[in-house]
Amino acid sequence: MNDQGSVDREIVRYERGGPSRESDRVTVEEPCEIRLGGAPVAVVMRTPGHDRELAAGFLFSETIVAPGEIGTISACKDPDALNPENIVEVKVVPGVEIADTLQRNFYATSSCGVCGKASIEAIRLATERLRDATRFRRDIIAGAVPALRAAQETFEATGGLHAAGLLSAGGEVLVVREDVGRHNAVDKVLGWAYLRDMLPLSGHFLVVSGRQSFEIVQKALVAGLPLVAGVSAVSSLAIDLAEEGGMTLVGFVRGDNFVAYTGAERVI
Amino acid sequence: MNDQGSVDREIVRYERGGPSRESDRVTVEEPCEIRLGGAPVAVVMRTPGHDRELAAGFLFSETIVAPGEIGTISACKDPDALNPENIVEVKVVPGVEIADTLQRNFYATSSCGVCGKASIEAIRLATERLRDATRFRRDIIAGAVPALRAAQETFEATGGLHAAGLLSAGGEVLVVREDVGRHNAVDKVLGWAYLRDMLPLSGHFLVVSGRQSFEIVQKALVAGLPLVAGVSAVSSLAIDLAEEGGMTLVGFVRGDNFVAYTGAERVI
Repeated sequence: MNDQGSVDREIVRYERGGPSRESDRVTVEEPCEIRLGGAPVAVVMRTPGHDRELAAGFLFSETIVAPGEIGTISACKDPDALNPENIVEVKVVPGVEIADTLQRNFYATSSCGVCGKASIEAIRLATERLRDATRFRRDIIAGAVPALRAAQETFEATGGLHAAGLLSAGGEVLVVREDVGRHNAVDKVLGWAYLRDMLPLSGHFLVVSGRQSFEIVQKALVAGLPLVAGVSAVSSLAIDLAEEGGMTLVGFVRGDNFVAYTGAERVI
Repeated sequence: MNDQGSVDREIVRYERGGPSRESDRVTVEEPCEIRLGGAPVAVVMRTPGHDRELAAGFLFSETIVAPGEIGTISACKDPDALNPENIVEVKVVPGVEIADTLQRNFYATSSCGVCGKASIEAIRLATERLRDATRFRRDIIAGAVPALRAAQETFEATGGLHAAGLLSAGGEVLVVREDVGRHNAVDKVLGWAYLRDMLPLSGHFLVVSGRQSFEIVQKALVAGLPLVAGVSAVSSLAIDLAEEGGMTLVGFVRGDNFVAYTGAERVI
């Protein structure tokens, strides 16, 4: 996590005795506008830092661009932009046509996957059922959470950041990203993999600090991840989608214990 | 919370010893399509229950409808709808024109406020600076969190639900709503108040179980709430918006202690 992730603010602390004025670190949340071919397609409420990864991961996990389709990702050069540091310009490689999904305008909040779909039928992205026979050891699944926590220096400081990490089946932590939004942390991790041509992520797994909702599972399925593990609860729709996609969904990882909601055959 | 909030699923629990197959309760997450005048305007990933309040609160807090503008809210009667129980039909009273904000299509995830805005400039909703001189006692602010927790029966069962509560300045809990999404819980509370013609909510305060982001503060400002308190962290943009709007923003309510990020003059 870089230094953009938190900022000092004047606060009033109420504890035993009178209130005390002091300075405290809080998590930064700022809008990031993602432009594709010059047109704004999404505003994501995010913690600044790793914005190129965020843009790549968002566009990929929402199936707007496929692996290899992004040409350049650069800072905004629009002289009229008020906050050019909060705008990322993405260009596709010559010859790539962007699907009409782009006609939707996206607005993603800091806790939100995607936006722009106005009917229930449009929510689910088409993904193929996973064919990944990787097995994952119980101790490696359980160990992913302490590994994630160890990498979250900023979390200790503000208490306001979510984290996502990508691990190999052998338990090696490849990357950890933090954000005020759960979905952004996942998009930054997937964007990191996208920019390294690592997709699909067969033989790897994702660990997340927060709740595992429908959107987290959907993003992981698009990336071809056979297992997602989390510290916290999962929702019914996340279970349904993981089941349908052939993904192993693990929740409530605490100490040596956890719960497999789907795909327990991958756990050894 | 009604019985729609959680559902039993078959899981595999990994604890000391071999894995055990059992049944566990998980939080329900399902899409709810909000239609206004027959046209779909938003899909919200929510926990079923209190859908009329959710629809009213969402449309109000996103400034699509003003108090008094909603005529009827009813279940879907579309014979072609696949899941009519997940569709809410809202009609405005005769003579009301819906602003062109409706031209945007919304898609709200379970953790998300609103969607459909594609540029940074479009994110902030116009709200007037609060003129509310209500003072709030320290013990009442601190007591709101245990009061909220006491009302969250479902939370105990699944560990997956967020809650929001509306309290009087005297500490009386008027309503508590739960949802898989933080923003939905707030929208259900605001919709409850909307349907009782209680807006604006001067002299009241909101307590939330989760993180206080930009969107939560924005919804509370639209509702005229002078104070928002939460168990958890706040973001930099939430602080900026609360400061600008003249709202008191309180975080990290734990036991008798809490932190005021803005508007400490209201705390006595």
